[in-house]
Amino acid sequence: MTELLRSWVDGANRPDTDFPLNNLPVGVFSLADGPRRQGVAIGDRILDLGRAEAAGVLGFGGRLMQDGWNGFMASGRGEWARLRRELTMLLAEGAAARARVEPLLVPMAAARLHLPFAVSEYTDFYAGRHHATNVGTMFRGPENALPSNWLHIPIGYNGRASSVVVTGTSVIRPMGQIKGPEDALPRFAASARFDIELEMGAVVGQASDGPISVAEAFDNIFGYVLLNDWSARDIQAWEYQPLGPFQAKATATTISPWIVMAAALAPFRVATPEREVPLLPYLAEPGPMLYDIALEVGLAPEGAPETVIARTNYREMYYSAAQQLAHHASCGCPMRVGDLLGSGTISGPERGNRGSLLEISWGGKEPITLDSGETRSFLADRDTVTLRGHAQGRGYRIGFGEASGKILPARG
Amino acid sequence: MTELLRSWVDGANRPDTDFPLNNLPVGVFSLADGPRRQGVAIGDRILDLGRAEAAGVLGFGGRLMQDGWNGFMASGRGEWARLRRELTMLLAEGAAARARVEPLLVPMAAARLHLPFAVSEYTDFYAGRHHATNVGTMFRGPENALPSNWLHIPIGYNGRASSVVVTGTSVIRPMGQIKGPEDALPRFAASARFDIELEMGAVVGQASDGPISVAEAFDNIFGYVLLNDWSARDIQAWEYQPLGPFQAKATATTISPWIVMAAALAPFRVATPEREVPLLPYLAEPGPMLYDIALEVGLAPEGAPETVIARTNYREMYYSAAQQLAHHASCGCPMRVGDLLGSGTISGPERGNRGSLLEISWGGKEPITLDSGETRSFLADRDTVTLRGHAQGRGYRIGFGEASGKILPARG
Repeated sequence: MTELLRSWVDGANRPDTDFPLNNLPVGVFSLADGPRRQGVAIGDRILDLGRAEAAGVLGFGGRLMQDGWNGFMASGRGEWARLRRELTMLLAEGAAARARVEPLLVPMAAARLHLPFAVSEYTDFYAGRHHATNVGTMFRGPENALPSNWLHIPIGYNGRASSVVVTGTSVIRPMGQIKGPEDALPRFAASARFDIELEMGAVVGQASDGPISVAEAFDNIFGYVLLNDWSARDIQAWEYQPLGPFQAKATATTISPWIVMAAALAPFRVATPEREVPLLPYLAEPGPMLYDIALEVGLAPEGAPETVIARTNYREMYYSAAQQLAHHASCGCPMRVGDLLGSGTISGPERGNRGSLLEISWGGKEPITLDSGETRSFLADRDTVTLRGHAQGRGYRIGFGEASGKILPARG
Repeated sequence: MTELLRSWVDGANRPDTDFPLNNLPVGVFSLADGPRRQGVAIGDRILDLGRAEAAGVLGFGGRLMQDGWNGFMASGRGEWARLRRELTMLLAEGAAARARVEPLLVPMAAARLHLPFAVSEYTDFYAGRHHATNVGTMFRGPENALPSNWLHIPIGYNGRASSVVVTGTSVIRPMGQIKGPEDALPRFAASARFDIELEMGAVVGQASDGPISVAEAFDNIFGYVLLNDWSARDIQAWEYQPLGPFQAKATATTISPWIVMAAALAPFRVATPEREVPLLPYLAEPGPMLYDIALEVGLAPEGAPETVIARTNYREMYYSAAQQLAHHASCGCPMRVGDLLGSGTISGPERGNRGSLLEISWGGKEPITLDSGETRSFLADRDTVTLRGHAQGRGYRIGFGEASGKILPARG
């Protein structure tokens, strides 16, 4: 594990900042009513890359002067590495360029953050062993908890890219068709079992047009975000047979504002858990491709303090994003720059490690008590849910910012 | 039903052309190695709209001078109607503008056709009563053929937009995880049950950001294409529980090259079949929103003549595209210009009306004999499958061109 790289920027050497020099996550920001610009987070500041390129401090053919990261991602892995190298030199303690760079920094507190990239397509997986077991146990009993394909396939389904929003975007409680087990007929009503799913999202940064190996898939992943796959459990229960979740998952998908590049997470690579059955060769990992990233979910009712309702770790996943991407491409499916792959809900072995309220409240049967004394089985109107995560280095951490959203009442 | 509108363009008044003046479907073409240009099909010709706008024959703010129809679609329904009005005047028999327009026509036979629009997201439905009953009977028996939600919800799932290709694009037989009922373990192999699905595709031409009524949804549909949802049944059978089809449907999705605007199909509107159970009000149709479009599937082994293996009609669907789109948006899902909605497989009541080989061969148990004497349960390498369709007017028809693809052997 590497040490903290010291920077001259305010706040970047604090052990609890999400954004030390080791991180350099990329995003899109605006100031006041100004245009959207590419930026990189460093300590309490954002380096305005659009202005940096315009000023000749960086030279990337205009691909830092856009309103999203897709063009830069498409420029390839060599450019990804060069950007990190050059930024590290510019921002390191003692850098000669400090005087030229300092005027290009803006206070993060003054910036509005936007979706960091245009989401081409969004795919969500179901790759957490504990989550799949918990949900399967609730729906099918402990003997049949895991579907028979689960240990062989990184099960996934196509989600809705247009639902992806950046942290801070409010989420309107969905309406939908709901039919309870006692109901004779469905009704169209506001979801009463609106839930979260704590996930990581992998951002595909290189296109492919045919099957690729897990190693190639790993190399094609530009970086990672936190991802909350908001889920209406009552809509899902009635609609999902036989073709899978649809409207239950299409209201919103909240991501963190900063894409942490895979290179920043390299010191935290870990292997996926031991296989319970051997994988087919096209899914075999040539090395550790998962990451040790501590994750937590906070829930705050309006006007009340936040309670952390779950703590878990990305390393709990049974499949890595590289395996998921290789599987995704295996039938010849073209993958594109800007594709977003949700990991699936990340739960750990204990109740305190569960990444959804469905699991935490065991289908609503065991409501959780918040620090305010209120209880929750599912989300209430005006609750705010915030995901956080970081990889812990020696004296520094690699964070993502928050993925947060507040529930507004249904339109109905 | 309206009469043929006579045009001065070669071939446009032939009763069997897909492209009389009543149609005016839009697409994208190129000549030799030239750039992609917007065009409209008329008889045996394509009117080059990019050059028409450059020459001042049409004026649409440059939205006919692009390489796809998304920008024009976004400009709104008023512009859609104006384009049809102005084209009708320019191309009608006796038009004063003939001398100016004639040099802008290119022979369709010389043109290469491309995807007519950038597919934002692709959603596939499961809205054919006969298809759902056939498939359900095969998998679950006749008593449980229809899922309990089917008569209430236009069941759909998100597909893969990057898989959409234009007619004439070869389709490489997919590899994937396959596990037969007798197999102890899955293997990674070429699909042996590669199939077609005969569908119509609705192209969303106006964005929405929240629930919309069925009437609004109807108005937001720009037009229709033929669509073949290539499907690997063996991959699907092993992967699809619990989250639906994924790699089985992501190899390719072939569409016809011309978008027939909804206005051209207006004389052929028909109501959806009588409801077996009442629909919830948000899905009620205020008028006929389905279309009478005759459809057929041809299958040609390499070097052998084509056999028409299915004839059916779009009016067989239980749900219209407008109902599907209204349902799609019901949870607040943002819909975008360029979204493509597959109708679901269109089968009729008889064996000769089945829109997939899965149904035609009843899961492989009853192979079909082609005119060449060969038999097929599923597709063989180098088979070419061609979808055709038209609405029949008095002395004219509204067609789509073909949606055709040839199967190439698996990469494996």
